[in-house]
Amino acid sequence: MSKKLTSRSEDYSKWYNELVVKADLAENSAVRGCMVIKPYGYAIWEKMQAELDRMFKETGHQNAYFPLFVPKSLFEAEEKNAEGFAKECAVVTHYRLQNDPDKPGKLRVDPEAKLEEELVVRPTSEAIIWNTYRNWIQSYRDLPILINQWANVVRWEMRTRLFLRTAEFLWQEGHTAHETKAEALAEAKTMNNVYATFAEKFMAIPVVQGVKTESERFAGAVETYCIEALMQDGKALQAGTSHFLGQNFAKAFDVKYASKEGKQDYVWATSWGVSTRLMGALIMTHSDDNGLVLPPSLAPNQVVIVPIYKSDEDLDKITEVANGIMSDLRAKGISVKFDNRTTQRPGAKFAQHELQGVPLRIAIGPKDLANGTVELARRDTLTKSVVTLDYLTTTINDLLKEIQETLFNKALEFRDSHITEVETFEEFKDVLENKTGFISAHWDGTNETEEKIKELTKATIRCIPLEMNDEEGVCVYSGKPSKGRVLFAKAY
Amino acid sequence: MSKKLTSRSEDYSKWYNELVVKADLAENSAVRGCMVIKPYGYAIWEKMQAELDRMFKETGHQNAYFPLFVPKSLFEAEEKNAEGFAKECAVVTHYRLQNDPDKPGKLRVDPEAKLEEELVVRPTSEAIIWNTYRNWIQSYRDLPILINQWANVVRWEMRTRLFLRTAEFLWQEGHTAHETKAEALAEAKTMNNVYATFAEKFMAIPVVQGVKTESERFAGAVETYCIEALMQDGKALQAGTSHFLGQNFAKAFDVKYASKEGKQDYVWATSWGVSTRLMGALIMTHSDDNGLVLPPSLAPNQVVIVPIYKSDEDLDKITEVANGIMSDLRAKGISVKFDNRTTQRPGAKFAQHELQGVPLRIAIGPKDLANGTVELARRDTLTKSVVTLDYLTTTINDLLKEIQETLFNKALEFRDSHITEVETFEEFKDVLENKTGFISAHWDGTNETEEKIKELTKATIRCIPLEMNDEEGVCVYSGKPSKGRVLFAKAY
Repeated sequence: MSKKLTSRSEDYSKWYNELVVKADLAENSAVRGCMVIKPYGYAIWEKMQAELDRMFKETGHQNAYFPLFVPKSLFEAEEKNAEGFAKECAVVTHYRLQNDPDKPGKLRVDPEAKLEEELVVRPTSEAIIWNTYRNWIQSYRDLPILINQWANVVRWEMRTRLFLRTAEFLWQEGHTAHETKAEALAEAKTMNNVYATFAEKFMAIPVVQGVKTESERFAGAVETYCIEALMQDGKALQAGTSHFLGQNFAKAFDVKYASKEGKQDYVWATSWGVSTRLMGALIMTHSDDNGLVLPPSLAPNQVVIVPIYKSDEDLDKITEVANGIMSDLRAKGISVKFDNRTTQRPGAKFAQHELQGVPLRIAIGPKDLANGTVELARRDTLTKSVVTLDYLTTTINDLLKEIQETLFNKALEFRDSHITEVETFEEFKDVLENKTGFISAHWDGTNETEEKIKELTKATIRCIPLEMNDEEGVCVYSGKPSKGRVLFAKAY
Repeated sequence: MSKKLTSRSEDYSKWYNELVVKADLAENSAVRGCMVIKPYGYAIWEKMQAELDRMFKETGHQNAYFPLFVPKSLFEAEEKNAEGFAKECAVVTHYRLQNDPDKPGKLRVDPEAKLEEELVVRPTSEAIIWNTYRNWIQSYRDLPILINQWANVVRWEMRTRLFLRTAEFLWQEGHTAHETKAEALAEAKTMNNVYATFAEKFMAIPVVQGVKTESERFAGAVETYCIEALMQDGKALQAGTSHFLGQNFAKAFDVKYASKEGKQDYVWATSWGVSTRLMGALIMTHSDDNGLVLPPSLAPNQVVIVPIYKSDEDLDKITEVANGIMSDLRAKGISVKFDNRTTQRPGAKFAQHELQGVPLRIAIGPKDLANGTVELARRDTLTKSVVTLDYLTTTINDLLKEIQETLFNKALEFRDSHITEVETFEEFKDVLENKTGFISAHWDGTNETEEKIKELTKATIRCIPLEMNDEEGVCVYSGKPSKGRVLFAKAY
């Protein structure tokens, strides 16, 4: 298989699919819609997990683990939630296989081993968790409960794409319980903020924080906060959501607490999650026609060293220099790999590390040995320079920070130049067709208008930005009064 | 619910169940046989994961993620493996729910949404992984593949117990592919060694390394290495297994590689795993009638500080002292928590931390403030001493090491004093009934004898120890010749 990717301008979607597979991030599996996350892709996901997990713990959360299965009777308890997910549920109906009497060597479901009650493979865990919380919560002393779970979930999507939409995906889901509405609302906002900070600081992806309209809200939520990012092709991507669930789940599962004054009341709830979908956002924000571009904060290897040699003697000398560089870099907390594979030539190694987005590449050849230098190549700008060994660690330390910032600023500039304010529906359609990106427009606040615009343009309201101007106007479609602009876009 | 546990001598099994629930480790869920791992239990599991993950990476392994589901046709490809797990498989047959026309407000499986091919919820992942490896392996250059996965698996067990045997459990499963038989064998042994080191060094659990007999082998393995531990009630517990799979899966999934010489051959395989079952082993090795006893290496909090005060002024002073202690301990890498909850009295806090196995407890009261001392209580020995602040950090640092060693040595002494060599079947039965523990006895090497002994005594061959004496003898049951002793026991 050629390492060369289809260019983004030729076919963005094809470019994405090829990149994911060729950079060894993930691939399709034998199970419809389920992916295999390959070691390199998983290593990036692990970096994301580690940072997020730290941020969750710093904000007072603990991890726990709840069952994969949700009995049907619990699943259907919160009606809106059930309605929202019923159409895409994998359902376990049997608990045993047996030899197929008609087909020797084959197995079939044992008809005797039918479950009394079907089990839904969790598409999200509110139901099983709130059923558990009922036993954990008696009084205000038991609150708040601040729990997160790292888990796999299954949503039987019909059209799937690696990382972006898969039948099984990995995620974290926070589920919290509070005494008051104000506390729960504050938690939902705090966690959306955590997601925004993570996206911007570690993923180098600028995001807009906002709330979803009713039609885009999580099934069972009173309010859904979100972070929305813009991909290079001008389509938006929902990168994380944090839901204020009101007392919906507490009521569905009868979770009450006794207040300090002895009054019984339903508990207030939030839930919030990000998933392996973030991998898709990462790829489509920074990468180029040569492959993946990784922000140093999330690169499994921030630096790779490639030796260029003809004799074993040269290799020995290069190895000695490489060892020195590695120990200096590691002392600074910089991750580095010495790619001394003998099965690949330097050119093939260069191509692979470029495709896989290693932020900095060091090449050391005989000339470098003589001069006390190395060649340092930067993945994001594809520029090279010669650096003397004395300054190498400092240079690399500074460059990694610079790359992280550059990637963010570049993405920010692209995003900001792709937010277009429009006043008419003609302009609206024109932007969608020619410029793409977010459209900032007035909306009359009705479901009907939102639906009609979606029908006509495929654009949806990505969010009502939290930092909305109090600018009154008229709806871009209906001409009715509007209290402020919202962000429309075509979306992943 | 009373915090007091049933004593071990009264009812070991009841003691275990009560401890797991009351120490907030885990509880049963609404799903038959599936547990909820509560935050405190999960925090211990996270410590185990972190150490194991580090050890796997240090031995050259990378993490990846494969689908939860195994299509039936792949599941049945390796016959012995399929046969071994078919009887306990949860099976997904449908992918959608719909409103039940007969029961308003209820859902039912949509009969139109039946899967063409049933999906088995993975009981183990050899099938789906080896089906993937076929595409990853062409030549010797692609080998070895050294991959681990952290995942949930489902085995529909009829009798379940928290941590020890649950329908869903968390585990890691390594799956490696090699050029030669020798390499694969070496890998299987290396990983069994890693497990033994982890058990002894971090869990403070002495283990016997050995191989399983044919009847106890993993379904589809050529050889199963294992680590076997002894619980306080004299029953054995299999704590980890590492399988040499030969070419069985390579043949079932047609995974061949071209050697350096261009010859095509099937790949050699291993798989190895440990699970949340280790939590059960940890509990049943060290804990006592007062609750959990944790080795410091795996304690979420190694030290807890409880303030004893009557006035806010005293609390302020104690807080100041506690902050100093915490900063000193944390600088040494010791984890510590200041339990300044106002909802609980000191006595209740002491009881809770004892029940939850915190290795060291510091109490600071007004007298201590005056004297520049604290009271230091050790969980494993239930002893207390008064320590001056100047020596506190050093004392704690030393004590944590001492506790870790003491726990291991105590368990080792118990284990070693519960390995009994017997020569006759009368002695065999007598030990099982009165002394319990491992029985070291000669066995004729046949399945029949093993089966017969199991039938008569419920004891099974836990392993053929790797460090087996080359002592010839006669089988304890059949009187036929034997080449060495094996370890029998009743087991979890």
